[in-house]
Amino acid sequence: MSYEQDRHSNHISQSFNEELEQIRTELLTMGGLVERQLSDAVEALVAGDTEKAEQARKSDQAINDMEMMIDEQCTLIIARRQPAAADLRLIISVSKATSDLERIGDETSRICRYAIELANDGKNVRGYQEVRHIGNLVRDMLQNCLTAFARSDAEMAYKVAKQDKEVDSEYRTAMRSLMTYMMEDPRYITSIMNVMWILRGLERIGDHARNMAEHLIYLVSGTDVRHSSLKDIKRTVREVEQKK
Amino acid sequence: MSYEQDRHSNHISQSFNEELEQIRTELLTMGGLVERQLSDAVEALVAGDTEKAEQARKSDQAINDMEMMIDEQCTLIIARRQPAAADLRLIISVSKATSDLERIGDETSRICRYAIELANDGKNVRGYQEVRHIGNLVRDMLQNCLTAFARSDAEMAYKVAKQDKEVDSEYRTAMRSLMTYMMEDPRYITSIMNVMWILRGLERIGDHARNMAEHLIYLVSGTDVRHSSLKDIKRTVREVEQKK
Repeated sequence: MSYEQDRHSNHISQSFNEELEQIRTELLTMGGLVERQLSDAVEALVAGDTEKAEQARKSDQAINDMEMMIDEQCTLIIARRQPAAADLRLIISVSKATSDLERIGDETSRICRYAIELANDGKNVRGYQEVRHIGNLVRDMLQNCLTAFARSDAEMAYKVAKQDKEVDSEYRTAMRSLMTYMMEDPRYITSIMNVMWILRGLERIGDHARNMAEHLIYLVSGTDVRHSSLKDIKRTVREVEQKK
Repeated sequence: MSYEQDRHSNHISQSFNEELEQIRTELLTMGGLVERQLSDAVEALVAGDTEKAEQARKSDQAINDMEMMIDEQCTLIIARRQPAAADLRLIISVSKATSDLERIGDETSRICRYAIELANDGKNVRGYQEVRHIGNLVRDMLQNCLTAFARSDAEMAYKVAKQDKEVDSEYRTAMRSLMTYMMEDPRYITSIMNVMWILRGLERIGDHARNMAEHLIYLVSGTDVRHSSLKDIKRTVREVEQKK
């Protein structure tokens, strides 16, 4: 029996089903906010647009509020509905994914702060191309994560885990170039450091997106794939596909 | 009625009580591992002891395993025992604290890697005193967190939240000094960058310890104090004390 069949056949209450679907929808709404914040932050940085960066930084509050609200609903559903099996997994994975989204929001707010500092410095710093490139990669990961949650799509989640490897590799290359620029011209040390913190933040966002993907795979398969190799994740996902 | 009275009077099953106490005990055991890893990492760095750093790095595996094991137990208890109120809060806060401990373990493993690089570089780099100082502060925070969980002590958790402010301020001062050293002598850029990453890791460990403290306050008070000011946390903790 597939995950979706299992989930919809095992409990009778229509309103329970609705409550469960609601927390998933709220996760997606929160994800949309975070995704928007992340695009705005990267655009603001590259354009030197401090106002946009300031706006994006402020959406952190709304994101934090959503985290607490979703968590509270998860707790209420557990207490009232006594969920088990796939229902409980949905609640747990939504709650954990929410926490990763909140941390992505935190990293993004920090990126906004560095973007503002860099714009105020007014220097023409290297590394923006790398930021834009890695920024696009992690935004794509985040979008894929949300799609995976929307469709209970383990294959898509596996793709996110693979993308994280690519981000890590691009990140290392970018950091090496920045280190070289820094040594060539120490006048730019402060600005390049800011670009480095931004890249580090983006790399961490990639890690959180990967965590979210792992939570989705747990939801769909019942297997906890945290700290697993890509190969093991692939095997788990293939088993899910075969059961369909 | 205090939190402890509430928890022990509201359910009849002795074995349920034991299961709940067991996950708390396991959280503390996992916390002990992480605390040890963190002390070893900082000592290894300051002494340039690559073997010790390598050892500490490896304990990451055991920490990850404990995270998954505790999480599985939490899920099982929810599915079988249908906990509510303070029991459910215990499970939720243990599960969340476990996740923060795992991230502290991650940061510490990364610190070990930088410590090994620094030892292999063999240069006499500045910033070690700051690392030792901030390292001691965050280790102390972590110890206090674990004590707070062991004793359901909200006052102690509030102390941890306060300590995080101190860590943030010391971190900023240390980073400013390191930036100055870097500009004075660009030959040390690579090594100083490594020290900076270590300091950043320690600062993040402080954030995770603060998160843990907030989970404990939620457990004891029922109030979610994430994203709250120190003043609001203090008020919540005072209300807990008054109910005792």
